[in-house]
Amino acid sequence: MFFMDNYGMFYGRKTKQTFGKERTDLIRFECDYNMGAAPQVLERLLLTNMEQTPGYSLDPYCAKAVQMIRDMVGRQEAEVHFLSGGTQTNATVIGALLRPYQGVLCSDLAHINVHETGAIEATGHKVLPLPSVEGKITAKQIADYVDAHWADDVHDQMVQPGMVYLSNSTEVGTIYTKAELEAISAVCREKGLYLYVDGARLGYALMAEGNDLTMFDLSRLCDVFYIGGTKQGALFGEAIVICNQALQRDFRYMIRRIGGLLAKGRLFGLQFLALLEEGLYFKMSQHANQQAMRIKAKLQEKGIAFQCDSPTNQQFVIFPNEALAELTKNFAISNNGPWDETHTLIRFCTSWATKTEDVDALLAELDRIFS
Amino acid sequence: MFFMDNYGMFYGRKTKQTFGKERTDLIRFECDYNMGAAPQVLERLLLTNMEQTPGYSLDPYCAKAVQMIRDMVGRQEAEVHFLSGGTQTNATVIGALLRPYQGVLCSDLAHINVHETGAIEATGHKVLPLPSVEGKITAKQIADYVDAHWADDVHDQMVQPGMVYLSNSTEVGTIYTKAELEAISAVCREKGLYLYVDGARLGYALMAEGNDLTMFDLSRLCDVFYIGGTKQGALFGEAIVICNQALQRDFRYMIRRIGGLLAKGRLFGLQFLALLEEGLYFKMSQHANQQAMRIKAKLQEKGIAFQCDSPTNQQFVIFPNEALAELTKNFAISNNGPWDETHTLIRFCTSWATKTEDVDALLAELDRIFS
Amino acid sequence: MFFMDNYGMFYGRKTKQTFGKERTDLIRFECDYNMGAAPQVLERLLLTNMEQTPGYSLDPYCAKAVQMIRDMVGRQEAEVHFLSGGTQTNATVIGALLRPYQGVLCSDLAHINVHETGAIEATGHKVLPLPSVEGKITAKQIADYVDAHWADDVHDQMVQPGMVYLSNSTEVGTIYTKAELEAISAVCREKGLYLYVDGARLGYALMAEGNDLTMFDLSRLCDVFYIGGTKQGALFGEAIVICNQALQRDFRYMIRRIGGLLAKGRLFGLQFLALLEEGLYFKMSQHANQQAMRIKAKLQEKGIAFQCDSPTNQQFVIFPNEALAELTKNFAISNNGPWDETHTLIRFCTSWATKTEDVDALLAELDRIFS
Amino acid sequence: MFFMDNYGMFYGRKTKQTFGKERTDLIRFECDYNMGAAPQVLERLLLTNMEQTPGYSLDPYCAKAVQMIRDMVGRQEAEVHFLSGGTQTNATVIGALLRPYQGVLCSDLAHINVHETGAIEATGHKVLPLPSVEGKITAKQIADYVDAHWADDVHDQMVQPGMVYLSNSTEVGTIYTKAELEAISAVCREKGLYLYVDGARLGYALMAEGNDLTMFDLSRLCDVFYIGGTKQGALFGEAIVICNQALQRDFRYMIRRIGGLLAKGRLFGLQFLALLEEGLYFKMSQHANQQAMRIKAKLQEKGIAFQCDSPTNQQFVIFPNEALAELTKNFAISNNGPWDETHTLIRFCTSWATKTEDVDALLAELDRIFS
Repeated sequence: MFFMDNYGMFYGRKTKQTFGKERTDLIRFECDYNMGAAPQVLERLLLTNMEQTPGYSLDPYCAKAVQMIRDMVGRQEAEVHFLSGGTQTNATVIGALLRPYQGVLCSDLAHINVHETGAIEATGHKVLPLPSVEGKITAKQIADYVDAHWADDVHDQMVQPGMVYLSNSTEVGTIYTKAELEAISAVCREKGLYLYVDGARLGYALMAEGNDLTMFDLSRLCDVFYIGGTKQGALFGEAIVICNQALQRDFRYMIRRIGGLLAKGRLFGLQFLALLEEGLYFKMSQHANQQAMRIKAKLQEKGIAFQCDSPTNQQFVIFPNEALAELTKNFAISNNGPWDETHTLIRFCTSWATKTEDVDALLAELDRIFS
Repeated sequence: MFFMDNYGMFYGRKTKQTFGKERTDLIRFECDYNMGAAPQVLERLLLTNMEQTPGYSLDPYCAKAVQMIRDMVGRQEAEVHFLSGGTQTNATVIGALLRPYQGVLCSDLAHINVHETGAIEATGHKVLPLPSVEGKITAKQIADYVDAHWADDVHDQMVQPGMVYLSNSTEVGTIYTKAELEAISAVCREKGLYLYVDGARLGYALMAEGNDLTMFDLSRLCDVFYIGGTKQGALFGEAIVICNQALQRDFRYMIRRIGGLLAKGRLFGLQFLALLEEGLYFKMSQHANQQAMRIKAKLQEKGIAFQCDSPTNQQFVIFPNEALAELTKNFAISNNGPWDETHTLIRFCTSWATKTEDVDALLAELDRIFS
Repeated sequence: MFFMDNYGMFYGRKTKQTFGKERTDLIRFECDYNMGAAPQVLERLLLTNMEQTPGYSLDPYCAKAVQMIRDMVGRQEAEVHFLSGGTQTNATVIGALLRPYQGVLCSDLAHINVHETGAIEATGHKVLPLPSVEGKITAKQIADYVDAHWADDVHDQMVQPGMVYLSNSTEVGTIYTKAELEAISAVCREKGLYLYVDGARLGYALMAEGNDLTMFDLSRLCDVFYIGGTKQGALFGEAIVICNQALQRDFRYMIRRIGGLLAKGRLFGLQFLALLEEGLYFKMSQHANQQAMRIKAKLQEKGIAFQCDSPTNQQFVIFPNEALAELTKNFAISNNGPWDETHTLIRFCTSWATKTEDVDALLAELDRIFS
Repeated sequence: MFFMDNYGMFYGRKTKQTFGKERTDLIRFECDYNMGAAPQVLERLLLTNMEQTPGYSLDPYCAKAVQMIRDMVGRQEAEVHFLSGGTQTNATVIGALLRPYQGVLCSDLAHINVHETGAIEATGHKVLPLPSVEGKITAKQIADYVDAHWADDVHDQMVQPGMVYLSNSTEVGTIYTKAELEAISAVCREKGLYLYVDGARLGYALMAEGNDLTMFDLSRLCDVFYIGGTKQGALFGEAIVICNQALQRDFRYMIRRIGGLLAKGRLFGLQFLALLEEGLYFKMSQHANQQAMRIKAKLQEKGIAFQCDSPTNQQFVIFPNEALAELTKNFAISNNGPWDETHTLIRFCTSWATKTEDVDALLAELDRIFS
């Protein structure tokens, strides 16, 4: 058998399955990308469908969305680019920021370390994982690693740390505080590393209870970050914000080279306009978090343990195997592998589209199972 | 000055600009991706928007579209995968088919040689261009190149030709006949090369006057080909058909590695269902070709010369510079660079969405200019 | 401070310095490549210097050395190629064996994981480290990892394990037994992974007290392995033995592509002829081991602890800091970083060229320091 | 049949064979790397063989050779590094200088375009060949190409030209004049490209009749160049001179990453000391050129045509097929493929080691054949 507590962290990986994957009669909490898009997004595509515009994100809608994002993050000099998904975005940004012999420091659980099928290595760069606590790494870990690198006589035998990758919210749903991000940013600047934040689930992070970070902070503290669309109510699409002007040169070439420049690029502009106007992005994130908190409260009430304390839309739970057999009769959830002989690590995930009545049904079922 | 006839072919490149790029009051013939999608495509997305399905193209819609494509190409054992755009598709397929030290033979005008910002080289492979005639290469050229490679004592000093890339229709709008493709396929099999056809504009090719190729022929003669969606009425999306079973293993890993596996993969399935049901794909291609033929006939009537004889939706025309100044007052077209001191190479491009009345207006304007 | 016991293993790295690096008056035990070559090697180069032969290892000397190696490993169908150094060899072999989306399993201390400046990632492949014990990994670890990979629903999100890399002797001087290598080989064949053994110090391993592996075993159990020259008495050079015939095709192209095919390739043939004739390679390895065992015995007598129990020419020792200050007045040794507040991890390294009287002097000094 | 005049230039390649490859009784003029090293080189290795020095080119001999090269090229701020061969050197330098989406402009006959098995593409970069005249390209060609790139609306669809690669002497033995190199250097600086000169045969170029370039000019006009050893009397080894200080950072990491940092790096220092002391490098180059000029004069006397007018050690000759059958009975020469129905392109190559009496014999044979 293959337990998380023995191998999980070292290997930096988890088994991942979905209970009830093939069934269509279940209420689904297994991920935040199992439906289409927010209705406002589709409506915008419909309205503009027969308009003629230049391709490759050179249209007026992209221009408007870029300006809206610049205003939102408080940096007029920022460059904004759009890509279709998270892995593509990470590979493009990391490939653009590093010199060939440099690597990227990250958490051992980082998406780039575990779940991107070598997309980063495909750009020629080594991923340098650090042991995480609750999915997070610290300024001190980064400083120690960099100092140790340069202390070697023969440091050129080793991959040079060139940047730091964080995700916020993290792969296990936790969030970075402003103090944590400021400390990491300060170390990066002191040691000559770039700082990049993967915001695939940035909305959920910023709307979480206890969060004190803002978009302004991100644009001040990071060299590059991205605002996720795919897992936040778009059909697809991520908005890369390049705050460090030294990194802006020729970025479109990098996008082209990975095959990421969409011919009908206006689809990005239109979607982000729909998401960002009237704060829809944040309202939907808040809704997802609230529904996740209802699930969390019920599980706590039942004395169920959590892998970590997440204030966002992903809840990783150490669930008794017998109860799990019951639960999965009517609900699709994510199976993240055996935890010990009698428990399994599972994930409940909510989204912009999670219905209150579906959560009601889940809570009732938990009451029944643990009565 | 930089003329096509001197440098164009050798460099394998053309300057490319759009007259009237910034203006919104023009009738646009500059490309086939300047609008949204066929209404049937959008309708399908709307209808299914709130359904819950598994991600990553593992949903029932993708499954159904895959089966429809298998039926259409007449090979039940074919594997079908979906990607977002042409460059991404080409880099993924070529990276999957070649050994590290192999290169891909193609026309000097091939999209992979000229317009993909090094995406193929980014996978570590050299593009090996052959001089084309009307955008096409021949079985004999391929055989000669391969024979010359192996005739060398020190052939391992050179990139080994490992596959052939064709596009149909080609970058200049021409098409391959069945006899031409059969000859190329036979040489490839004899010499141990794979054959891959880029079908970004496959519909236009198959519906062209004079075409005698079928989807069945493609699946019989190629190892891999793709059916283009982006330039054929989808929002985005290309369907890769892997006919050679030896090449099917682990292809999804290749897609993941380039960041190409869309989270909401059902968007591909839904779009291709809409395009392929009731022959919409072919009807729209036919419409575009017919409108292009109207433009071609008018230009011929006026004695204007063509770069080559294209039966499809792209018409490359050697246009007098004075007349061009007139034309571009009301029409957006593609500027492919100076041809000689008094002419410019331009492209007229139609699509599924080209309106008959817009072509009427263009024809009237040509009558006026050349009266 | 940065201690081995806290971070060393996880990071898979060690600081590495040489005490007395700049001084020329020290007796040096810091590595096994600080001198020229065995006199027989140089003699051979001198004798043949004015002969004319074809380049690129196509000369009669390489042919003869290849045949000698085939005989020595007991496989007439093996292919043998020569390269200049270990990193180049590892990158070439791993790049040749893996599909683009595959990675290489190895010990966390593996040279490819720690000390090759991303050369493996430069070929597009992820290094997949497993926690080692005494620098070694086990058949069970490999089987568990592979099983866990395929147990995932979405295994294509992860790098697919495609091969196993071992070094023998290992980076900390330990050796694999025949039973261990047979078990690993059996798992690899069962699970569809290739097995590759880095033999940079293969002679030291095979001549170690307690070793029961032979060259015949290696050629039977591995798909590819290499016989190191650089650290075993050559000026430079490693001999790759490709036992698995399915992996032999086109290997010279791979060597060319990394810039590894030496113009005057006969230098490899001549050197390996000198090393292998009359068993010089093994006699020199034995000499180095014997001198290392004298040092080991003295340290044990003094109650000094070892990082692990090495029977070969590298001895990693947990040395008291005060004694170290004394020792380094007259001896150059390798400093592998702080072990705890009062100890440092150091390495004594012997070679074909280590003089008995230099070891005598070292032992006398240890007697003096620890008297 | 496959003639040079039809395909040779476009394909940028030539067939290459050696007449009499397998025979050991021939006088060989087929290349300049078919023997060992200048006796002074071997002597130096012998003298120092039992000295102990640090590895990885950090020894006093490398330091001394570096200083000698700095003095010779007249730039104290230059960095000098050593690598084993030309392809490795080119891939390392080009990979270090370019951004990922950039390519390298060169002659269509350039070694990097034709004879490096995709080593440049393996670093992710496209080679951008320009049509050469006598193996050379001009400042105007470079300027035109760069201007055309930036004139495009959608220039980010194309590989951005980032540097220029020249070889001197060229692949066909010709040389660049000071005026030509100054013009190219000026264009590169104006357009923002780096200039790199491959000096695999730099000695032959600088000692050629009609040459007006000096090492000082090279260090003033290039960003990087290398001084070849392998084809100029060393066992192996090339000395990279990085003149542009902005390009010096972290270059050793690049060398490590390609597996190019030799453990016994002092072998480079020792060899270059032997070659450069007392001007041996230049004396040997002059000797080779003189012997080549004797061959050239005889062929001219006989009315034989040349591919181009080379003043260096390589002479490419359009040789009658019947005479060739005679010639190859006693002489090994390089066969560069059929030229027309009755002629073959062949190469005579001299070196530091070419004996006057062997050339005498060749001249006598030519007299006999063409009597």
